[in-house]
Amino acid sequence: MTTGTMQDWPLNVWKLIDHAAQNHGTREVVSLTCEGGVDRSTWGSVRSRAKKVAAALRRYGIRPGDRVATLAWNTHRHVECWYGISGMGGVAHTINPRLFEEQIAYIANHAEDRILFFDLTFVKLVERLAPNLKTVERYVLLTDRAHMPADCSLDLVCYEDWIAAESDAEPWTEVPETAAAGLCYTSGTTGNPKGVQYSHRSNVLHAMAACMTDTFAVGARSVVLPIAPMYHANAWSIPYTTAACGAKLVMGGPNFDAPTLQKLIIDEGVDLALAVPTVWLSMLQHLEKTGGNLGKLTRTGIGGSAVPRSMIEAFDKLHNVRVMQLWGMTEMSPLGTIGSPTPEVAALPYDRQLDYRVKQGRGIFGVEMKIVDDNGTELPRDGETFGRLLVRGPWIVGSYFKGDGGQVLDADGWFDTGDVATLDAQGYMHIVDRSKDVIKSGGEWISSIDLENCAVGCPGVAEAAVIGVPHPKWDERPLLIIVRKPGAEVSADDVRAYLSDKIAKWWMPDAIEFVDEIPHTATGKIQKTTLRERFAGYKLAA
Amino acid sequence: MTTGTMQDWPLNVWKLIDHAAQNHGTREVVSLTCEGGVDRSTWGSVRSRAKKVAAALRRYGIRPGDRVATLAWNTHRHVECWYGISGMGGVAHTINPRLFEEQIAYIANHAEDRILFFDLTFVKLVERLAPNLKTVERYVLLTDRAHMPADCSLDLVCYEDWIAAESDAEPWTEVPETAAAGLCYTSGTTGNPKGVQYSHRSNVLHAMAACMTDTFAVGARSVVLPIAPMYHANAWSIPYTTAACGAKLVMGGPNFDAPTLQKLIIDEGVDLALAVPTVWLSMLQHLEKTGGNLGKLTRTGIGGSAVPRSMIEAFDKLHNVRVMQLWGMTEMSPLGTIGSPTPEVAALPYDRQLDYRVKQGRGIFGVEMKIVDDNGTELPRDGETFGRLLVRGPWIVGSYFKGDGGQVLDADGWFDTGDVATLDAQGYMHIVDRSKDVIKSGGEWISSIDLENCAVGCPGVAEAAVIGVPHPKWDERPLLIIVRKPGAEVSADDVRAYLSDKIAKWWMPDAIEFVDEIPHTATGKIQKTTLRERFAGYKLAA
Repeated sequence: MTTGTMQDWPLNVWKLIDHAAQNHGTREVVSLTCEGGVDRSTWGSVRSRAKKVAAALRRYGIRPGDRVATLAWNTHRHVECWYGISGMGGVAHTINPRLFEEQIAYIANHAEDRILFFDLTFVKLVERLAPNLKTVERYVLLTDRAHMPADCSLDLVCYEDWIAAESDAEPWTEVPETAAAGLCYTSGTTGNPKGVQYSHRSNVLHAMAACMTDTFAVGARSVVLPIAPMYHANAWSIPYTTAACGAKLVMGGPNFDAPTLQKLIIDEGVDLALAVPTVWLSMLQHLEKTGGNLGKLTRTGIGGSAVPRSMIEAFDKLHNVRVMQLWGMTEMSPLGTIGSPTPEVAALPYDRQLDYRVKQGRGIFGVEMKIVDDNGTELPRDGETFGRLLVRGPWIVGSYFKGDGGQVLDADGWFDTGDVATLDAQGYMHIVDRSKDVIKSGGEWISSIDLENCAVGCPGVAEAAVIGVPHPKWDERPLLIIVRKPGAEVSADDVRAYLSDKIAKWWMPDAIEFVDEIPHTATGKIQKTTLRERFAGYKLAA
Repeated sequence: MTTGTMQDWPLNVWKLIDHAAQNHGTREVVSLTCEGGVDRSTWGSVRSRAKKVAAALRRYGIRPGDRVATLAWNTHRHVECWYGISGMGGVAHTINPRLFEEQIAYIANHAEDRILFFDLTFVKLVERLAPNLKTVERYVLLTDRAHMPADCSLDLVCYEDWIAAESDAEPWTEVPETAAAGLCYTSGTTGNPKGVQYSHRSNVLHAMAACMTDTFAVGARSVVLPIAPMYHANAWSIPYTTAACGAKLVMGGPNFDAPTLQKLIIDEGVDLALAVPTVWLSMLQHLEKTGGNLGKLTRTGIGGSAVPRSMIEAFDKLHNVRVMQLWGMTEMSPLGTIGSPTPEVAALPYDRQLDYRVKQGRGIFGVEMKIVDDNGTELPRDGETFGRLLVRGPWIVGSYFKGDGGQVLDADGWFDTGDVATLDAQGYMHIVDRSKDVIKSGGEWISSIDLENCAVGCPGVAEAAVIGVPHPKWDERPLLIIVRKPGAEVSADDVRAYLSDKIAKWWMPDAIEFVDEIPHTATGKIQKTTLRERFAGYKLAA
């Protein structure tokens, strides 16, 4: 083995913003602020202020490897903190403010966060949290002197004052590229949330992959609005990606309502905006009601949950906006697949293209995928067989923070996503179910999600959930749980009749129950664990 | 410092072709062959055959780190060798067949190449070279049994027979990402050629950067023709880049003539083709003569030497093809800058855009640039001041093979490109001269290239060269050397009059000499060293 003779140039996160400031220094970073206005900054200014954050943290005594938390919306200040913390060797821990308060306290204590940067929106929340935050030494409010609250039980530091005193001339802290740069906790539907500690290397490689033409396809002429929050898997890496290519970055601050976002998209000439399906559903409804448009928007990146076919069609036909479905996880930085078409798919008639576009997208370089059965045997990539989806790559988790959850990779280094999926010859991946929700009937698997999606199409059905219940012969069989629409009188037989020509015969639920309400998680997903508890001991006819 | 907890997934070159075969297995790799036909292969097949090359090399006894050379045009077989060699841990040494024979022998001996793969075109050349190749143990002819020459003085191995015996099932050889994967020698206008040893990491990072939207902007729907040869700085990385994104790869084999390349571009639906300016000059002349077109071609990548403004205009206006000027070096894998416009430049009137498009392009993430004076002091990025261009990044050379040339980086890790350039606020870089050719007049620098480009515009002037000659007061002043067009009678005064309103007054050459011929290097550049020898001792008036 001979070592190559190329330069040793570690992939540090701060090199992204150095590139942006050097080559795209006047390109704008625009934020709606928590104080209510619009802030017009630039990559040059964001870098300079991030350097001041780094200097302030060093002066305070934060050491490389220490965790510094944020509880904040997408704004220039949050981006400054992000680069500033990791730029002095610290670990930027973005906390999801929508978690239950006990979860936030658990996470901050587990991470041993020493400083908490937070937005005006969260003053009351932080006042309530503070007594339970065992390691936070300092509370920095992301605002200026004029907006500091008069009455707060905490000893607050004013962000603008704090960094104003610092110079932007100190160099970034050199750390190895494998050093931790960021920390994000999974939402944890079972057990305590677990931390994913991104490295400088994983974030830089992910940003480079995200700039690729079949990924986000962004460059210096792009104007990008990440509606996905920075605490939600790095805002899908947009604050890194836009720096890597010098795109204009637009952020909505605390605003998630359709009218505000529509105005922002139009005013700033946004051509790519990224969010979960619910945000886009509200936007489509708003546009329909008002007859409005989306300005220069040409593409939406949609992930977080599956994109309905009707949403893709509505964007295409009503707004000439292309939906790029994408899939990822907190554990994947987050990008795994994205729905840019292959030439073969692009050549299909529109309706056949949609068959591919409702899938979660194609694997990109840097994300290896395979599907396996319960014995770990690899299954065919035929677009039909489904199995547990395993992934491998440089921006995918190797272990959780502090070793929580133990060994999470198999002997060959694969990470189990917890999803059940198909892969096809075009490289597309389609999620069929969560592996803990898939129903294992006599050695064959039935997708609870497919059944649910089918059942909600039945007239009179408002919501549907499917869980597996024990069966003496088939091990497990589907139980369909339905919430009727107000006033509807749909019966179990009606539902069976509706499903009969839409699903394989052996997928037909063995029982159908009607309930008043289906429980949901904080992020709006069906809480199947609660349903399973409620229907524990449910007996099916043999 | 805390280490991140992401997976350890080394950036190995073979992961590029694994990705292509897995996700884009049926996408085509099309080559014009040395035997005369067209070969239609796929990424799936190229990977399978590359695995067989790896197996054959292992069986023969090649060990990780050993050098294996190629003397070959761009074909599927060359790509197979490339991935096969580095995929078993070897170092793929691509030799430029256009070098003088003594240089080829020097390079092969210096590299200690153990096996030489070569094309049918080069049988006679290799027969002549063989007695001087001290380390080559085996000669593998890149053809099938039917095309093996009947009369050859060497003991030749037939490539197709050799790999047919092997299996494609053995895994690639795991080597650290810093291991050497490829070797390319500089053309060496002064002294012996020096080797640049690319690592797996540098090649993979470079391929990812090349796929970015503001770089080559290629994806699975692209059809790419690298006319630049693989021995010329990795064909500008196209065989890596197209694998990384699953693009269709089209290669011209031994053909560089305009009619063959035009037909290939049309037949295969090429949308991006990359070559040096001389190739495109022939193509434009051919199209003008025949009234032909370029099919689906939308973009050309042009590098190797500066692109004339008239060429950019001709492509735009006559063929609706956008020229992307790019700049790089063997020492840079090769990509340094590329001319994708910023939004500010894209908004300019066409003529003003051209002022930027004649520059060498913008720096991409992963390439840091700065300009300095002779004392190493950084100079302003104002688009006017020029200085020595220094670069730093993960795919830029850190030292030459076997330590030739000694320490080539300064204390801060910068590599001196040997070019003199300007940088501007938009991030554009413009090469003004080679640093050894720039004329240093009283502390100010005069670009020999600018003077030459200006002088060739003078009626009656066929070619012009400028060198510095000693001057008692100003240290150095320009001497302009001119070849007249056949039959032209242009005088020194005519040239002075022509230049007078086109250059700064103090740039006016102190003397003009007329010669019958200007010497050129093997690659067509003006041989200034020879000119300097010829005009050594030239006396200027004080």
